[in-house]
Amino acid sequence: MRVPPDKTPYNTTGPFGHFSTYSVESRDRVRCINGATNVPMSTQWDPKPYYYPIQIAQYGLQHYSKWLENQQENHQIILGEKSSDWKGAAGMSDTTERLFYTDAESGWKIVNISAEENLSNAGAYIYLDKNESLPIVEFEWRPNDENSSFTILAKHKQDDLLILLNYQFHDDSGGGKCVWPDDGDVADLHPQKDGQVSFSFSMDPEIVSKWDFVSRNVLVDVARALSSTQGRKKTDNVVLRNGDIRLVSLGFRGKVSLRQEVRQSANQHKFAFEAAANWLVKNQNEKGGWSVPVERSIADRKLVLAPGWHSAMAQGHAISLLSRANFVFPENLKYLEAAKKALQLFEVPSSSGGIRAEFHGKIAWFEEYPTQPGSFVLNGFLYSLIGLFDLSTLDSKSLELYKSGISSLRQLLPFYDTGTGTIYDLRHVFLMNVAPNLARWDYHAVHVYLLKWIAQIEKSRGEFENFELFNKTAERWIGYANGKRAKHN
Amino acid sequence: MRVPPDKTPYNTTGPFGHFSTYSVESRDRVRCINGATNVPMSTQWDPKPYYYPIQIAQYGLQHYSKWLENQQENHQIILGEKSSDWKGAAGMSDTTERLFYTDAESGWKIVNISAEENLSNAGAYIYLDKNESLPIVEFEWRPNDENSSFTILAKHKQDDLLILLNYQFHDDSGGGKCVWPDDGDVADLHPQKDGQVSFSFSMDPEIVSKWDFVSRNVLVDVARALSSTQGRKKTDNVVLRNGDIRLVSLGFRGKVSLRQEVRQSANQHKFAFEAAANWLVKNQNEKGGWSVPVERSIADRKLVLAPGWHSAMAQGHAISLLSRANFVFPENLKYLEAAKKALQLFEVPSSSGGIRAEFHGKIAWFEEYPTQPGSFVLNGFLYSLIGLFDLSTLDSKSLELYKSGISSLRQLLPFYDTGTGTIYDLRHVFLMNVAPNLARWDYHAVHVYLLKWIAQIEKSRGEFENFELFNKTAERWIGYANGKRAKHN
Ligand SMILES: [Ca+2]
Ligand SMILES: [Ca+2]
Repeated sequence: MRVPPDKTPYNTTGPFGHFSTYSVESRDRVRCINGATNVPMSTQWDPKPYYYPIQIAQYGLQHYSKWLENQQENHQIILGEKSSDWKGAAGMSDTTERLFYTDAESGWKIVNISAEENLSNAGAYIYLDKNESLPIVEFEWRPNDENSSFTILAKHKQDDLLILLNYQFHDDSGGGKCVWPDDGDVADLHPQKDGQVSFSFSMDPEIVSKWDFVSRNVLVDVARALSSTQGRKKTDNVVLRNGDIRLVSLGFRGKVSLRQEVRQSANQHKFAFEAAANWLVKNQNEKGGWSVPVERSIADRKLVLAPGWHSAMAQGHAISLLSRANFVFPENLKYLEAAKKALQLFEVPSSSGGIRAEFHGKIAWFEEYPTQPGSFVLNGFLYSLIGLFDLSTLDSKSLELYKSGISSLRQLLPFYDTGTGTIYDLRHVFLMNVAPNLARWDYHAVHVYLLKWIAQIEKSRGEFENFELFNKTAERWIGYANGKRAKHN
Repeated sequence: MRVPPDKTPYNTTGPFGHFSTYSVESRDRVRCINGATNVPMSTQWDPKPYYYPIQIAQYGLQHYSKWLENQQENHQIILGEKSSDWKGAAGMSDTTERLFYTDAESGWKIVNISAEENLSNAGAYIYLDKNESLPIVEFEWRPNDENSSFTILAKHKQDDLLILLNYQFHDDSGGGKCVWPDDGDVADLHPQKDGQVSFSFSMDPEIVSKWDFVSRNVLVDVARALSSTQGRKKTDNVVLRNGDIRLVSLGFRGKVSLRQEVRQSANQHKFAFEAAANWLVKNQNEKGGWSVPVERSIADRKLVLAPGWHSAMAQGHAISLLSRANFVFPENLKYLEAAKKALQLFEVPSSSGGIRAEFHGKIAWFEEYPTQPGSFVLNGFLYSLIGLFDLSTLDSKSLELYKSGISSLRQLLPFYDTGTGTIYDLRHVFLMNVAPNLARWDYHAVHVYLLKWIAQIEKSRGEFENFELFNKTAERWIGYANGKRAKHN
């Protein structure tokens, strides 16, 4: 069973748990990495894609952790520097203009492109590199009107299928569709040999007429596109790895200025981490939260959260991500300010739109799902404590909330222990006539991991009694997974 | 899995649960039925026999239930009515006098016996009946001095062993030894063929010079005597059934008056029930309790009760027994008075020698073991509620305590449910770093039985929501015993 590496003192700006092994963007419930915001959209509880703050924060923490653990290395090559790299659409009646110059102020070599706007036009394009370990395409551009677009062409090797990924300024109110097939329903792609399919992502119209940096993971975009066709089942979720596709070309249409430095990279960890942190800063509400725009019901709809609910797990993850962003970009105070503002909801009761429950009216708990009565999900609470501790060195209020949470954990932890495994939440305590919601083994493993994690924090704090309690409890829980049982009387 | 018969309305003076199937006096931890008090003495937590109020109340409730369920039938025969039934010791130098007369006032036929006091003298005796279904010997007598005694002779058929049971006024401060071998250690009885062993029980010197009714179950007395020899293991506990022994004779020594109406009976249920109720009345302390005179430790001595502790289970059982005694003997107010006085400790905190714990400072619980911190044993609490309800029709305070207990039960019941079984107590909640103390299956069965029992009470009270809650929880728990598990997430 996985446990955190034994590193003390605990580093609040280190990799986040084992999130570097995550691949949020490959989850079946992620519709796509949005072309406007560069963060994932979820379809977990609603078929219409929406922004799920926990998922976005996890995406950011994952890429932060990968970035740290790869020691910020990123193999990349630069394309399009030479004018001759830029091709015009072949054999078509429309004209494609390419104008090359060097900007006096920035010193950048720039190409101005003017091409027929229609998606059937290949526009002005360069060939991408065949190196299979470089699936990220990045460039600096200025689309000069809303009819501008760019297209990445990739080839799915096994299916011999050409895939066009079109990135457009589409007016579906903020890119709500995330990614869609251009030809309607293309449910049955895989058997189609020597074919071609076309998908679109929408971009943020606010960047029109501005210089903007684009970074797309083509592996991810192709996989989410192929997963987005109608009639697909969860088990049809497409996950692609380096070598499954080959990048072919990158083309532009409409009126576009472009720095002649297209990069093809091994990863986009720092970009993705920053995108997630920026999304959080931009989308924090006046309560300091990131509300979830879809209904969430648990316990056979005995507990229902109307759209607009907050989650302690979202607040905690957000704080963990924002405090790391503050560490990387200390000159920009917005991350720290947002992290501090995120503490407010820890003191607002669930009944008032907050995330705070009080067990038996006295033991404070930060609710992943702030239902009434409380549901007391363990893993979400533990993540919220980690968030609070991550900010605690910068904010005394955060330390105070963390310590009150630790006190609650000491008191309520026994209720999750069945002597043979663990319970996911305490819904059965306040809903009458409900069996305990046993944690399946992968959640049991999460409980163990998080408890060991918090044990380590307590050790770093010199709280050795808490360390012993949490560590030994985790050890006992590991025993359960290995078939041990608590003694009976 | 055994559940209570579905009888509503609930009868507070009916048989007590399935206690009519109990045989408290056959338990290995019962040293003997004391010759002075006619109630069991325990060696469960101390090798020196002591009075354990829970055991005494269970003994009383068992016999009350058997008495009711046998519809008060008791087959018996009368012996010793004729003067010629009474023999003198044969072939000895000492003289045995027998003087027969009829008491003018009572009309009783009486024999006055005067015989050599030494136990080696058979004294004046009658032969007992060979009928194997009549193991109880009963008579009315007046021992005229402390050197008087009587002896029952029985034969263990399989071992061809003669067993002498001597009942004497022994000065070991209240019969503390309960029963002992007269020849010291006779550890190795069974192989001894054609032999003879002798045991003594001590009687209450207070009855000297008074008329007193004696009732002994010879099967039980022989079994406890044979189980009391040194060096025996628990697994050597001797349990005898009708047919295992044959009653031979009943003889008297010293100066004794005796009614010429020795009875041999099938059972002594009413006598035993009344003896237990009387013991409770006589031994209730000024707090209304029956304290336990030995130390009790649980959870590897993390929780220790010093001698003198009270138990909610003792209080509850005592109330159940006393309220039944009040029903049978309504003219004698002492039983009802003692039952009411037994309520006092339900309001005294464990920390002050009482039995009341408060979970999280607010949910009242009546403690089988009033440890600090609380241990919240489930079965003892449920028994205490049954006691409170048994008195509730006669006392509003008892009803109030019962209702507060039901409210607590609703709130804490979920904590005992592991989704695959039940937990015996909540020691793990307040002791740090302790695994839950899982209930072994026979205690799980007790939980089910008691919960169904209380469900039935709630149904009778018209509390259908509580009935549903407790009944369905019990049904789910029955499922666990049949291999069902709660769902995991
Ligand atoms: Ca969760
Ligand atoms: Ca018990």
